[in-house]
Amino acid sequence: MSPNGVFSFQELHRAPETLARCGKVTTKHGSFSTPAFMPVGTQATVKGLLPEQVADTGAEIILANTYHLHLRPGEATVKELGGLHTFMNWQGPILTDSGGFQVWSLSDLRSIDDGGVSFKSHLDGSNLRLDPKIAMQIQTDLGSDIIMSFDECMDYPIERKAAEESLQRTHAWEEKTLAYHPRDGRALFAIIQGGVFEELRKQSAEFLLGLPFDGYAMGGLFIGEIRDDSMAMLELVGQMIPPGFPRYVMGVGTPLEILDCVARGWDMFDCVLPTRNGRHGTAMTMSGPINLKNARFKADQAPIEEGCSCLACASYSRAYLRHLVVAKEVLALTLISHHNLSFMQRLMKQCRDAIQGGTFLQFRNSMAEFWTRKPSK
Amino acid sequence: MSPNGVFSFQELHRAPETLARCGKVTTKHGSFSTPAFMPVGTQATVKGLLPEQVADTGAEIILANTYHLHLRPGEATVKELGGLHTFMNWQGPILTDSGGFQVWSLSDLRSIDDGGVSFKSHLDGSNLRLDPKIAMQIQTDLGSDIIMSFDECMDYPIERKAAEESLQRTHAWEEKTLAYHPRDGRALFAIIQGGVFEELRKQSAEFLLGLPFDGYAMGGLFIGEIRDDSMAMLELVGQMIPPGFPRYVMGVGTPLEILDCVARGWDMFDCVLPTRNGRHGTAMTMSGPINLKNARFKADQAPIEEGCSCLACASYSRAYLRHLVVAKEVLALTLISHHNLSFMQRLMKQCRDAIQGGTFLQFRNSMAEFWTRKPSK
Repeated sequence: MSPNGVFSFQELHRAPETLARCGKVTTKHGSFSTPAFMPVGTQATVKGLLPEQVADTGAEIILANTYHLHLRPGEATVKELGGLHTFMNWQGPILTDSGGFQVWSLSDLRSIDDGGVSFKSHLDGSNLRLDPKIAMQIQTDLGSDIIMSFDECMDYPIERKAAEESLQRTHAWEEKTLAYHPRDGRALFAIIQGGVFEELRKQSAEFLLGLPFDGYAMGGLFIGEIRDDSMAMLELVGQMIPPGFPRYVMGVGTPLEILDCVARGWDMFDCVLPTRNGRHGTAMTMSGPINLKNARFKADQAPIEEGCSCLACASYSRAYLRHLVVAKEVLALTLISHHNLSFMQRLMKQCRDAIQGGTFLQFRNSMAEFWTRKPSK
Repeated sequence: MSPNGVFSFQELHRAPETLARCGKVTTKHGSFSTPAFMPVGTQATVKGLLPEQVADTGAEIILANTYHLHLRPGEATVKELGGLHTFMNWQGPILTDSGGFQVWSLSDLRSIDDGGVSFKSHLDGSNLRLDPKIAMQIQTDLGSDIIMSFDECMDYPIERKAAEESLQRTHAWEEKTLAYHPRDGRALFAIIQGGVFEELRKQSAEFLLGLPFDGYAMGGLFIGEIRDDSMAMLELVGQMIPPGFPRYVMGVGTPLEILDCVARGWDMFDCVLPTRNGRHGTAMTMSGPINLKNARFKADQAPIEEGCSCLACASYSRAYLRHLVVAKEVLALTLISHHNLSFMQRLMKQCRDAIQGGTFLQFRNSMAEFWTRKPSK
């Protein structure tokens, strides 16, 4: 399946009733089971956790940010220090995004031309540029196992005409990205765009499926559009991608959103929600999110969630965690993030077990009792 | 030596040339070797570290703050949750200060009378009061192993007359504290005050040594006075306290300051320096402090310190740590604090070994090459 002989994806089980499936992705730095949730290590660190603590949650692959690491410390420095795996002490697979999304969401004064995008750093205002060649160079210097193609994230809402123009640019850029791919065992994923225009998404999937990518991602969703529209796009495109390719929904999501993507045949997910929730004192549980700042936890001796083996639940009461949150102690971030990431990995494991056991739909519906599609505030 | 049959101190070795000595303190929650450095867990957490990580540095006892925990979450809550040891998951000895120092340094609108001190919380401005009985009650509710007597921290500089009045109040308060001591196996330490007035320090030591305390601390030093004056006071008082009592210098200090206190017969130390340095990116080494923010570490592949077994030195380059500091990632605090606390414990171990080996003075002088008495900025 892979043009380079190292990366591979294998579909292992398919659920009845839905398109949910289990699989296994193999990279230069080991393999991971799908459906997979990838913790986000934006700046070469999953916020507040040691890599061994991240691995303890059950995570098998993490994500790092091309845009952030390009700005600081710079890919040349990371390369000089042996690449991201050595630099941040994570030995498992690493996926890097292409920077397109951050250029769209963070940087000032973007100026897009057919070749790429010029922008000012959100840190110091310096002039920077990303294009297919540069994005590839950064990601290979970082030592990524799964490289994302350079794309343009469309605004939402967007006029049809502007969407078409943006999509043409994205396609030209992604085609160009392929040309710079070193084909040395690293995977290269395409990013399908097209907003919530069914026809454009279809066109994008068709175009990119015609090129020798190792996997296919959905970009530009969950950025403000109605959830039913996001799911319609995922349903349409999920069915178009042949079963031999891993399918990745970028930047998603809440537990229920992930399960609803899984139901539509998608395999890989990443989201800052578990660590962002950790920073804000929100713990994720099978019975929904709980805000540990709440006064009702002041003397609560129970752990966040019975039966959870995370660092927080193993040794600490909700009362202690509430104290840390209220007192703004950083240990709150460490403990609650470790819980939330453990929760996400437990969710994915139960999801995989349910697919294999033929009970995926029941599992999805049981989660819908406590989790809605909207992120908790 | 103890009036309650559980707490004990044993002097084990005395160094030649100086008053430096090794000893062992036993409490209800285990024992620790002296000279000992106690990491500060102000709000029932050593900032950024799990208790097991604190123990990994070699720390055998930690300190917690009466004032802060009284304000938040309140000693009643901590007691309800099984006491500090259970609450924060630290099974070793815990020393609690009396709150006197924080009332002096943090609170607004203090009003001191003969009975105690009324003040406003620095958090919400609420009216609070501490006196000998309340300070004892808070510390017993917290479940402290070593309780500090309630004292008044004198200003520096201070007029002789005001110092005398303050000292009389402190003595009356400390005498009263004894009356409320539950004598259930917890130790109670006196705090000797007197500013930099030799006569007052002597008078304070004589008065408090006449009362049945389990150990003796020096308070009100290192708050702005000249270091030679601090050391003169420590030399004077250190010789007055019989060898059967542990001697504790509160809030000290840099490596060299601690060794200079050890040379004058002092056994126990606490300081926020290692974790405060951790927050600011300063790593402590046998060759002096290094500021990891410095651009010269940008691509430095070496660990902070060769031969150190801390979490940072085991797996991370100075370059990575610099990146975390510059990117304001909380993992910087965790890793550098773990290093700094490991460094302090290594320093104390080497100090104890040098005392036993008869080479303490050489060891002290070797540290003076790289560390000055003044805290690094």
